[in-house]
Amino acid sequence: MDNAYNQDPLTHFDDDGRAKMVEVGEKRDTYRKAIASGKISMNSDTLIRIKEGRIHKGDVLGVAQVAGIMGAKKTSDFIPMCHPLMLTGIDLFFDYFDEGILIKAEVTLTGKTGVEMEALAAVSIAALTIYDMCKAMDRSMVISDIKLDYKAGGKSGTYIREDAINE
Amino acid sequence: MDNAYNQDPLTHFDDDGRAKMVEVGEKRDTYRKAIASGKISMNSDTLIRIKEGRIHKGDVLGVAQVAGIMGAKKTSDFIPMCHPLMLTGIDLFFDYFDEGILIKAEVTLTGKTGVEMEALAAVSIAALTIYDMCKAMDRSMVISDIKLDYKAGGKSGTYIREDAINE
Amino acid sequence: MDNAYNQDPLTHFDDDGRAKMVEVGEKRDTYRKAIASGKISMNSDTLIRIKEGRIHKGDVLGVAQVAGIMGAKKTSDFIPMCHPLMLTGIDLFFDYFDEGILIKAEVTLTGKTGVEMEALAAVSIAALTIYDMCKAMDRSMVISDIKLDYKAGGKSGTYIREDAINE
Amino acid sequence: MDNAYNQDPLTHFDDDGRAKMVEVGEKRDTYRKAIASGKISMNSDTLIRIKEGRIHKGDVLGVAQVAGIMGAKKTSDFIPMCHPLMLTGIDLFFDYFDEGILIKAEVTLTGKTGVEMEALAAVSIAALTIYDMCKAMDRSMVISDIKLDYKAGGKSGTYIREDAINE
Amino acid sequence: MDNAYNQDPLTHFDDDGRAKMVEVGEKRDTYRKAIASGKISMNSDTLIRIKEGRIHKGDVLGVAQVAGIMGAKKTSDFIPMCHPLMLTGIDLFFDYFDEGILIKAEVTLTGKTGVEMEALAAVSIAALTIYDMCKAMDRSMVISDIKLDYKAGGKSGTYIREDAINE
Amino acid sequence: MDNAYNQDPLTHFDDDGRAKMVEVGEKRDTYRKAIASGKISMNSDTLIRIKEGRIHKGDVLGVAQVAGIMGAKKTSDFIPMCHPLMLTGIDLFFDYFDEGILIKAEVTLTGKTGVEMEALAAVSIAALTIYDMCKAMDRSMVISDIKLDYKAGGKSGTYIREDAINE
Repeated sequence: MDNAYNQDPLTHFDDDGRAKMVEVGEKRDTYRKAIASGKISMNSDTLIRIKEGRIHKGDVLGVAQVAGIMGAKKTSDFIPMCHPLMLTGIDLFFDYFDEGILIKAEVTLTGKTGVEMEALAAVSIAALTIYDMCKAMDRSMVISDIKLDYKAGGKSGTYIREDAINE
Repeated sequence: MDNAYNQDPLTHFDDDGRAKMVEVGEKRDTYRKAIASGKISMNSDTLIRIKEGRIHKGDVLGVAQVAGIMGAKKTSDFIPMCHPLMLTGIDLFFDYFDEGILIKAEVTLTGKTGVEMEALAAVSIAALTIYDMCKAMDRSMVISDIKLDYKAGGKSGTYIREDAINE
Repeated sequence: MDNAYNQDPLTHFDDDGRAKMVEVGEKRDTYRKAIASGKISMNSDTLIRIKEGRIHKGDVLGVAQVAGIMGAKKTSDFIPMCHPLMLTGIDLFFDYFDEGILIKAEVTLTGKTGVEMEALAAVSIAALTIYDMCKAMDRSMVISDIKLDYKAGGKSGTYIREDAINE
Repeated sequence: MDNAYNQDPLTHFDDDGRAKMVEVGEKRDTYRKAIASGKISMNSDTLIRIKEGRIHKGDVLGVAQVAGIMGAKKTSDFIPMCHPLMLTGIDLFFDYFDEGILIKAEVTLTGKTGVEMEALAAVSIAALTIYDMCKAMDRSMVISDIKLDYKAGGKSGTYIREDAINE
Repeated sequence: MDNAYNQDPLTHFDDDGRAKMVEVGEKRDTYRKAIASGKISMNSDTLIRIKEGRIHKGDVLGVAQVAGIMGAKKTSDFIPMCHPLMLTGIDLFFDYFDEGILIKAEVTLTGKTGVEMEALAAVSIAALTIYDMCKAMDRSMVISDIKLDYKAGGKSGTYIREDAINE
Repeated sequence: MDNAYNQDPLTHFDDDGRAKMVEVGEKRDTYRKAIASGKISMNSDTLIRIKEGRIHKGDVLGVAQVAGIMGAKKTSDFIPMCHPLMLTGIDLFFDYFDEGILIKAEVTLTGKTGVEMEALAAVSIAALTIYDMCKAMDRSMVISDIKLDYKAGGKSGTYIREDAINE
């Protein structure tokens, strides 16, 4: 069974077939960076309200930004096999497109594991926060295209998603 | 400005245009239910590994199920304007489709606010957990179509998404 | 010793003189409200930057508002003898005075215990967040006058602090 | 706009004027220390009860000490832009003065950012805990003078508050 | 398969054989109480130090008491299928026996589910805290006999463990 | 009193006899490992259900494994004087014996303090989770023999418990 296990590409399981937090103690502390993105689609009235709201009526995206940052810091609290990490930087960016809002998160670390999950979590939680703030207007919003666009650092090297949105 | 505010459909903001946790004290405790769904797409090798893994090699979806349930319970911790709630029931369901996995979450409460966010959070965190467990095989997975399919209870009544997957 | 204990006005201790979370099971669910306030003093450059910043340069108070609301929800996590509560409403308000910023928080609940601590926690965490966001400009800021201005509901009735700032 | 931004002393905002967790990845791990203090004022009966209580009747300050330490460890959970840190030491100290209790917290770290916020959070949460434990006796207590007395380590060097209480 | 499931005494699993948080929405809010106990054994030097320490040298059990109470409040955070609950009372009690310390926890709730897990969690976390505080003296301590002594309330009625320590 | 304090083997207390988080800033980052174990006893029907359940009826130990791992990561959240740590690996193992289930946890870290508490917490929380999942069948389960079997790394060197179960 060891043989079978050794060939299993899912490293998050032990010999008993149960989940573990993978040992990374022997890895070196290197600079890591991950960029993830996603989008939330909504009807046009909702989108207009968000666009107009920043100054006087209430900044939906400002709240989503704070939620995304706080959520990224807590990734290892809610994704079971994620290592606790001392993230060194988190930022989120929002852009409008015809049918909604693009969300991008950038997370950095000097440490032993990548920060892909933290960037994906930041995007997901920012999107959920936008949904929450606007659901009284529009329950039909859809969150989609949450994906990893870029990662650098660590033994597996740099990954650039082919269809990642260029900046 | 009160007038303008009263017409603002985004009830999560106060007269200063800053976010608040909306007062629901006067609402009655009624039975609430929400169903949300989403999907994660992946390459076929990854999907086969997940399908085959339950028994001996490791049950990815079993970990995702636990993560989704625990995440739903903590929704008010990471979505800033969500009310803390004593959820009375949470379950998740997974189905395979050609290119990945469908995730559905059902959340119930007897209380003063709906549980849409809790169901959406359960789906999002289950999807992120699948990504985390499989990312060593496949970094190109995409999470999408996270949406509310159904909600019942409360003053705004029942909502059924038109294109919700029938069960 | 029972006698001595019964006369002890500090109800948070048991007969062994150790802290307990006081039994409130026999209390009725009533509407509760608490208002707390506090202030943070700073040098005039910092105050000007905060005042001007809302639109383009960055809204310090918007972040403090979100932090205060999220902190109030977690009061029972960090104040050891506080009961877990399902708060029904939280809002914060900021005002400028000559030397800094006044912070006020209003918290409501239909439940068995008062929400004084939640209102005081919201003010404290909002003040700490302002400090954090501005400390690169000004390390000498001082947080002070954190106090309960008003509470209503429950057996002990209404409390209005004599020198509370009128609204 | 980049120019304006570069001159903005509030480093916690990005080019869009939204809050970020500042990148500290390039900073060196150095020894950091921060001392913060504050006080809580109360009526004399309450103060006497706290002074007398340590042995048999219940140690209010013992509970406040534990709360302050646990709160300092969770600072990055509730102050939105604080970096998660592996604090290496936390201690709190209490002294009586005529009208109440002085609280001092000392926090250390070998890491990339200062621990000012952690020391201020420890003091704030200890003060709130004293309020909570004694509020059945005295609702008029006031928390004040929460400030940074000393910090050392990091590029900005040592800071000593002029009017800090000498030890 | 439904039949097989209906006969399964483990109600925490759904028809797919995956864990769920059991639906309790239809249950009535009734008064619930649970008492759990456990013990930690240690060498005599350690026990003497704990006994003597309360006044001047440091109160190990005072810290364990606070930890047990805070831990009970967070039970649904770390026991995956536990419902979030608004506990109405928590107290812990310590007694010495020849080889160590007996720990007892009493938890109450007016709600829809029992509080057995909360009482067991309070005992476990208090025991772990004693271990942590004393491990520099004695690494061989053993935590044992953690069990439910009593529960009342709810459809399953009252349970009294036969060999429960009489009070 | 300083002298007395210096001789006190309980390093978790300061000169005032109050708990502190011990300063470890001067310690070196070394590889640390801890193994803890415990057991939960139950009636034979419950044990058979757990053994048989993995495939179709529901994997109790799979949920306990996830809970133990997530609990270990949060040890410093609920054990008051534990340092926050970036654990590098966590795994749990289950074995059957005549009257129940043996639980073993292995935790690793490259850091400044040992991970004994994290291993003990993983075992405790896994045991509590098994209790929770099975309590509808069997309320008389007992958790016992939670102890440290092995630790390595740090100034105090390697510890092997004499009666630790050999593997």
